[in-house]
Amino acid sequence: MTGSLVVVGTGPGRAELMTPAASAALAHATDLVGYGPYLDRIPVTRGDQCRHASDNRAELERARLALSLAAAGRQVVVVSGGDPGVFAMAAAVFEAVERGDPAWRALDIRVEPGVTAMLAAAAEVGAPLGGDFCAISLSDNLKSWHTIERRLRAAAEGDFVVALYNPASKARPHQLSKALGVLRAFRKAETPVLFIRSAGTSEAKVINSTLGRSTAARADMRTLVIVGASATRQVGRWVYTPRSEWSAS
Amino acid sequence: MTGSLVVVGTGPGRAELMTPAASAALAHATDLVGYGPYLDRIPVTRGDQCRHASDNRAELERARLALSLAAAGRQVVVVSGGDPGVFAMAAAVFEAVERGDPAWRALDIRVEPGVTAMLAAAAEVGAPLGGDFCAISLSDNLKSWHTIERRLRAAAEGDFVVALYNPASKARPHQLSKALGVLRAFRKAETPVLFIRSAGTSEAKVINSTLGRSTAARADMRTLVIVGASATRQVGRWVYTPRSEWSAS
Repeated sequence: MTGSLVVVGTGPGRAELMTPAASAALAHATDLVGYGPYLDRIPVTRGDQCRHASDNRAELERARLALSLAAAGRQVVVVSGGDPGVFAMAAAVFEAVERGDPAWRALDIRVEPGVTAMLAAAAEVGAPLGGDFCAISLSDNLKSWHTIERRLRAAAEGDFVVALYNPASKARPHQLSKALGVLRAFRKAETPVLFIRSAGTSEAKVINSTLGRSTAARADMRTLVIVGASATRQVGRWVYTPRSEWSAS
Repeated sequence: MTGSLVVVGTGPGRAELMTPAASAALAHATDLVGYGPYLDRIPVTRGDQCRHASDNRAELERARLALSLAAAGRQVVVVSGGDPGVFAMAAAVFEAVERGDPAWRALDIRVEPGVTAMLAAAAEVGAPLGGDFCAISLSDNLKSWHTIERRLRAAAEGDFVVALYNPASKARPHQLSKALGVLRAFRKAETPVLFIRSAGTSEAKVINSTLGRSTAARADMRTLVIVGASATRQVGRWVYTPRSEWSAS
């Protein structure tokens, strides 16, 4: 039997936010490859399915294992949280293809999209991503702070709404402070800043703050931070960005 | 019975890409409000469900109708394609709340996220959104060309991958040409440019081009355009952006 590899996004957490296409790919797989806690979320639907759990940091190694299994004829699913194409496993798989066995380029590889964290986070608070926006990962084990700062400045100059992925971890407590500092130089103190923890799960929690008042201590690994653009505003308990710049009266 | 309003994202098109949470909200509704062709995609699951179809341009009017129905005690779903928070109906609903009857602020309003077009489009071609990226709508009936150009320049200066929503329509054939022109001044001619039409449907079609070769004629209303960053590259038939800037050797 010819092997295949599907990179699947399981969404932000709640089972009801995983697409039927992702569920079908998982049910069809002979082998699941992924970060342990993501695999634990997947219900066991067949007894003969092998689960290859790995550590959070080992993305490329995990991608190589998945490609080797597919090359050996297995039906492999690489399990990613959120959407696999956004700061997740799909890019690692194609990087492993580029650097690996040339035969891997002929493999049947497919990506199943999912609901990425910023969409679930935005839905928890209203529609803060209603205008043009950008997504930046603050994790500096993948790029230099210089690059991150350059992107934050560009985002501010373009008046984009900014979604910050991986804002903080125990190993990196300072990036978010620095990032908010960069944006503060460009935007008003009243600009809405939302700290959305565990968006799209039953434990979702929102802190609705402003650029003037917010401190990085409000974020951890499970938080997504959204910083408003000039038009982003509060209405009742919601925050939204008007689609049209002419409605920003 | 107390009314409610759920803004639902039905995903890019294929039923398998709509979340179970979105399906459940649709099945529970007494009233569906949305753009006609989006409503036509929704299977009829109950005979007593009213469908209020409207024109594509009438977003605010549609939002007001939905809020009035919810205020009258109906279980209303506003049907949006993709994710409702990204260039879609959620922002229109909160804008209508802000401008409308103060009593609307007390309504039970919820947003159900979905798979937005750029995620489905990226999945069709590999993982072009693997690094930091931004999303810009080229529709200039909602903002000035000056604002769009400012954002394109900022995106180029920040070396973001750029996803262009609403790149062209019969009424606006020239924006995409101008947008590609702005990006061409900053990026190499070999930069990958992807024209992905009807992503996430059975009719998906990809044109894999470069900034040097691409022309706006390749896009229409159903196309999403992704312009690579400096690290975005081709491997076999896929295009991806490495997560790490240090792997871009």
